[in-house]
Amino acid sequence: MFTAETISVGTELLMGEILDTNARFLARELKNLGIAVLRQTVVGDNPGRLADAMRCALSRTDIVICTGGLGPTEDDITKETLAKVLGVPLETDPEMLRMIESYFRARKIPMGETNKKQALIPVGGEALPNENGTAPGCYIRHGKGCVALLPGPPGEMKALFRKELLPLLKDYSSGTLVSHYVKVIGLGESRMAELAYAYLHMDNPTVAPYFKDGECYLRVTASGATEEAAERIAAPVVKKLLRLLGVNAYGVDISLAEAVIGLLKDKGKTVALAESCTGGGIGALLTDVPGASDVFGYGIVSYSNECKEKVLGVNPDTLKSFGAVSKECAQEMALGALALSGADCAVAVTGIAGPTGIGNANPAGNGNAVPARAGNAGSAAKPKASEKPAGLIFICATDGKRFEHIRLDTGRNDRGYNRTLAGKQALEALRKLLLKPEMRR
Amino acid sequence: MFTAETISVGTELLMGEILDTNARFLARELKNLGIAVLRQTVVGDNPGRLADAMRCALSRTDIVICTGGLGPTEDDITKETLAKVLGVPLETDPEMLRMIESYFRARKIPMGETNKKQALIPVGGEALPNENGTAPGCYIRHGKGCVALLPGPPGEMKALFRKELLPLLKDYSSGTLVSHYVKVIGLGESRMAELAYAYLHMDNPTVAPYFKDGECYLRVTASGATEEAAERIAAPVVKKLLRLLGVNAYGVDISLAEAVIGLLKDKGKTVALAESCTGGGIGALLTDVPGASDVFGYGIVSYSNECKEKVLGVNPDTLKSFGAVSKECAQEMALGALALSGADCAVAVTGIAGPTGIGNANPAGNGNAVPARAGNAGSAAKPKASEKPAGLIFICATDGKRFEHIRLDTGRNDRGYNRTLAGKQALEALRKLLLKPEMRR
Repeated sequence: MFTAETISVGTELLMGEILDTNARFLARELKNLGIAVLRQTVVGDNPGRLADAMRCALSRTDIVICTGGLGPTEDDITKETLAKVLGVPLETDPEMLRMIESYFRARKIPMGETNKKQALIPVGGEALPNENGTAPGCYIRHGKGCVALLPGPPGEMKALFRKELLPLLKDYSSGTLVSHYVKVIGLGESRMAELAYAYLHMDNPTVAPYFKDGECYLRVTASGATEEAAERIAAPVVKKLLRLLGVNAYGVDISLAEAVIGLLKDKGKTVALAESCTGGGIGALLTDVPGASDVFGYGIVSYSNECKEKVLGVNPDTLKSFGAVSKECAQEMALGALALSGADCAVAVTGIAGPTGIGNANPAGNGNAVPARAGNAGSAAKPKASEKPAGLIFICATDGKRFEHIRLDTGRNDRGYNRTLAGKQALEALRKLLLKPEMRR
Repeated sequence: MFTAETISVGTELLMGEILDTNARFLARELKNLGIAVLRQTVVGDNPGRLADAMRCALSRTDIVICTGGLGPTEDDITKETLAKVLGVPLETDPEMLRMIESYFRARKIPMGETNKKQALIPVGGEALPNENGTAPGCYIRHGKGCVALLPGPPGEMKALFRKELLPLLKDYSSGTLVSHYVKVIGLGESRMAELAYAYLHMDNPTVAPYFKDGECYLRVTASGATEEAAERIAAPVVKKLLRLLGVNAYGVDISLAEAVIGLLKDKGKTVALAESCTGGGIGALLTDVPGASDVFGYGIVSYSNECKEKVLGVNPDTLKSFGAVSKECAQEMALGALALSGADCAVAVTGIAGPTGIGNANPAGNGNAVPARAGNAGSAAKPKASEKPAGLIFICATDGKRFEHIRLDTGRNDRGYNRTLAGKQALEALRKLLLKPEMRR
């Protein structure tokens, strides 16, 4: 298997001004070619450090791909530096010069003198024409591998890679890698890894555990001579992992929202939403999936107690006795959404997103620390501040007969995190409800 | 000036599965401390290559910060590898072990045996407690600089960096950079850059134009011996840019949602929402801002025509004559939300997010290409498919007397992009309404 490294050139990357999406794009493309990326490096527009990075990469890797630093200005030094590292001069490629000239002619802008240097190519190299900008790329065989230079702007880089470099890199391809993601909810990463332990040390496919935003997943990566061969190697392991993880594995290669919408469609059910602390985020998750309108028509963002009472029919006594952040309120919100919409099931969320918990400050369960508006408040028997910390969230999913309650206490004062988790767990509550044997189509 | 390198550890990065946002975050933070980042490296979960990357970085740089590889599983090897590179053993930090145990206790999940190794710290190092996860960080002085290890999940990494590592890194700070972001909507990047041209070639502060997701901004970065000195250098330029960009500059260092919520509070007004194609996304944007409940209590996600009629009181004839994706429907949705909520103003959005346009397939204006459910549809006089392409979006903001209409035609078949743009423009319509001279407090 050939090995590769990428070098992203640009001081703006080192200053954190932009994200290095080029390295990620190349990583995926190289993976698909069956070329192993062993390292990604970012260096600034500094000839010494760039030369050092190129020398190191060339000494230990077959294929080196650099992005950036091919522009017309003085701090664009990638080609010059590579020529020095390889010990070859630069020469003008007349075809590239013509292309650059016509680029400016077509746009009726005068061509700068400095743009001429963009037509220079290291001797022995092959110019890769750039249809979307003035910086051509370049490709040079080196040892048993190669070096390639690509422009920095992602749009130009991707188009040039696909059209010009990808066909050349097929020479180094060793079949194909395919990856599948077994998505899991309701288990910690370590527990998931323990369950899947027997699979974590295989060679082909490899199985690796990951964790992100309250969900974890197992990545199954298989290599094969062709995509079909790789798929044949991955498939049985994916199947076994699904069996092993049971109900906690909600799908392969899909989001939780996609899994839930798929289940709703399978069962021929519709869902309505009643959101407080998530403020519309669950609706946004569901409707991010094309086709959501098949199963979702009504969502109420009841961010005030008044709206909970008036639109969802939550009993004012419930708000007084238990507060808006309570199991009781979540259940009434869900039942209210069900009644209003005529949907088959409904999910409600109410909680405290943060940054601070509930004292007498925020009785509306909308996650804010500020005083609620006059008229929204409704609480004689408020719970003590300590009883309702940030991160306390109540979720209820129901079809009117069955109830799936979740109580979260994240212990975190992080508004974004609590809202994300509340949204995921609301979808999970709905999934659990839909998986009940009584929820037949 | 001290120099730094970051090393991001994780095979998932080399496979292009996730973007390395940690390196960018650290780059910005280090820049703000006046520490020069000279290189960023990504390596996989491979002990040999990680050790090599650490050795190279330590040999040429003062400060090395690694992220990732502190988890409980076997392929989490960062601490072990650093200990080997530095030639010191690992020992359990009892305080960290207690924290990890209480993390699991609080969540009522059994602690895996492997989680114990997360409390190991290289001898001579200082543990950095992680309040948001089970992986503590660690800090070790090395030469005239230091090495720090941080967990990989960005939420944990950032919180730990700010609370624990940042104070320690102040020892290496050489003056300060401050940046401010003049946020702009309603202008393209090139028009904004033309207006601000005279400022784009200054030395201190520097001014640079950026563009992202339908908004652009100017970054003003000043350097000074102290934060106050840097702020004094930045302030007059920020002020001049705001004057120059006029009503298109909606704020400094804030999101559009924050700007809108600030305006609502200033004017003492409340807002209600009626969302179709954004599916709750605008509510999510608004309620992402702490204190949103002061000005927002009611949001209706009317993803079906039935909900538009039943909850918002949209006239069935309007849906028949003009379709759900029309200026007329947007206006009735907004007026319906106003009436239902009793709020001072309301914003409504209806449009086609994609992936395909409206033919007879989707009359509900909810952005889906699939047939609407029986009973939701309501269209005798449907517009032709060609008249309603993906990316066609109608927005209406109103206080019952004044109307701010926006018609978008993005020309793009990209569901995510269209929904994002629709959300931003809905907030912009509300901002324009609130800026009308009649909208007095």
